[in-house]
Amino acid sequence: MTQKGEFELIDEFFRRPGADASVRLGIGDDAALVAVPPGHELVVTTDTLVAGRHFPEAAAAYDIGWKALAVNLSDLAAMGAEARWVTLALTLPESDAEFLGEFARGFFALAGREQVSLIGGDTTRGPLTITVTALGIVPQGAALRRRGAAAGDDIYVSGCPGDAGLGLRLELEQWVDELPAAARELALQRLHRPEPRLALGRALRGVASACLDVSDGLAQDLGHLLRASGVGADLELGSFPRSLALAAIDPAFADILALTSGDDYELLFTAPVTARDKIAGLPLRCTPIGSITAGHGLRLLRGGAPVELPVAGFTHF
Amino acid sequence: MTQKGEFELIDEFFRRPGADASVRLGIGDDAALVAVPPGHELVVTTDTLVAGRHFPEAAAAYDIGWKALAVNLSDLAAMGAEARWVTLALTLPESDAEFLGEFARGFFALAGREQVSLIGGDTTRGPLTITVTALGIVPQGAALRRRGAAAGDDIYVSGCPGDAGLGLRLELEQWVDELPAAARELALQRLHRPEPRLALGRALRGVASACLDVSDGLAQDLGHLLRASGVGADLELGSFPRSLALAAIDPAFADILALTSGDDYELLFTAPVTARDKIAGLPLRCTPIGSITAGHGLRLLRGGAPVELPVAGFTHF
Repeated sequence: MTQKGEFELIDEFFRRPGADASVRLGIGDDAALVAVPPGHELVVTTDTLVAGRHFPEAAAAYDIGWKALAVNLSDLAAMGAEARWVTLALTLPESDAEFLGEFARGFFALAGREQVSLIGGDTTRGPLTITVTALGIVPQGAALRRRGAAAGDDIYVSGCPGDAGLGLRLELEQWVDELPAAARELALQRLHRPEPRLALGRALRGVASACLDVSDGLAQDLGHLLRASGVGADLELGSFPRSLALAAIDPAFADILALTSGDDYELLFTAPVTARDKIAGLPLRCTPIGSITAGHGLRLLRGGAPVELPVAGFTHF
Repeated sequence: MTQKGEFELIDEFFRRPGADASVRLGIGDDAALVAVPPGHELVVTTDTLVAGRHFPEAAAAYDIGWKALAVNLSDLAAMGAEARWVTLALTLPESDAEFLGEFARGFFALAGREQVSLIGGDTTRGPLTITVTALGIVPQGAALRRRGAAAGDDIYVSGCPGDAGLGLRLELEQWVDELPAAARELALQRLHRPEPRLALGRALRGVASACLDVSDGLAQDLGHLLRASGVGADLELGSFPRSLALAAIDPAFADILALTSGDDYELLFTAPVTARDKIAGLPLRCTPIGSITAGHGLRLLRGGAPVELPVAGFTHF
């Protein structure tokens, strides 16, 4: 697109009123100016979505806009941060007003709900790629981190891991066509419109001993947490939460999806046993699925007995 | 690339020691944590470079790494900010260690010199695209902006606009092969290794009335400044600075390059006449090239007499 086209596009779709007072200067200058409140640290994360890799080429533009923001806000949630400002770098094959309108609608539906201000960005021509940088704030020293889990801590996961993985199989394969409609819809919804767990992350400040979000699969992401904390874990498969979507498929396959499929963007966290009442009282369901051990490595149990699952890369930490 | 490959790549090339104390948590968690000093505003900008559009497909990886950072730091310079932290979202066709090594070398050569810390990023597979988000700080209320130019202010530009445009012609065309080697080298250097004018931007706090960086061409970018400030301008072509590169080509073509070619990343700013001594004393040469007028629109003069130049889009503001 020409420069003029670029500016017009940005104006038309992405310059929205309503930024809060922390935005001293929004879109339209060389850079934006924002005010970080005293006593807070700035939390910064960047994630890219590439067409054909992170979403199907034919995905709905609304969903792409939603998800590009959601996966970044999820990283802020995992830190216990309050999401405040985002930039959007959008590379597009052509200046397609219909795509941009729908993309912006999905993006701003989530941004508006979470009171996040778009403060800058860049629109370029090229293969469809979206990079969002999300900025949040957290009271000084209060951020949740991957390290901090201690032997004896409980391990929790929010929501129902595996649903988005089932949604991806539904998109890619035919074998699950016989699933009930409600199960299909739930799984696809979880794949295309992930929910960043921002309120949960904030509620876990001072409660969780370690936290991250499940983007690459629960087992792999738990591995990051264990390595960062220098501990091991026992996971009890029998205690994993099952949505109506995973309840509709073969239980052994449901186990594998729950452990290995990405895109759930649930929070995986640890907390001392003294926090059980607090966590049980949280508005979002968080299920205890195991406990931290002093040793290194991860053991899978069912009914307390060790099990082996054919999960690639599962023991590589 | 696989997830494991991705993590290895990031570790190998982009995890560097030496972040300053403001980085409370760097690469390796869900997000980074940084401390914005009291009394400062946060300055945020994002720019994307796409292969084949913002640099030739065959460009040196070192130069791509340098330029991806430089164009973002240039936006911070235009705000009078101190550059502090950056994130890097790198989309690559394949995990090419040689490319990554050279890219990182160029990126960190500039980052190290400007004491900017890489605090996060994302590596994905896809068509070569680089998005950098640069974060800086500026004392509260001190940021330079596009608005603020007043009638009677002088207009200045740093360095020699047009050199990078000549470099681009050298890359794309054959007709300038007869240029002296020193002129060629300078023009290509200015195209591939732009210098963000960070020290100049900071020195202009409290001095310049309005400022931006020249990324799309001096005339077009001046148009942004004029619109934002609600003023017009007279530019005196005879006063434009000429490097040895532009001095080696046809003067009329040099005028057009200086006015319309992008990629210079010089600062274009205005200041009241009372600031002339201060600006003349700056370490980086800044040349007065015209003055702000009360009317709207831009007039081109040579020796004080209006001239017409065949410059597309030149009068569209």
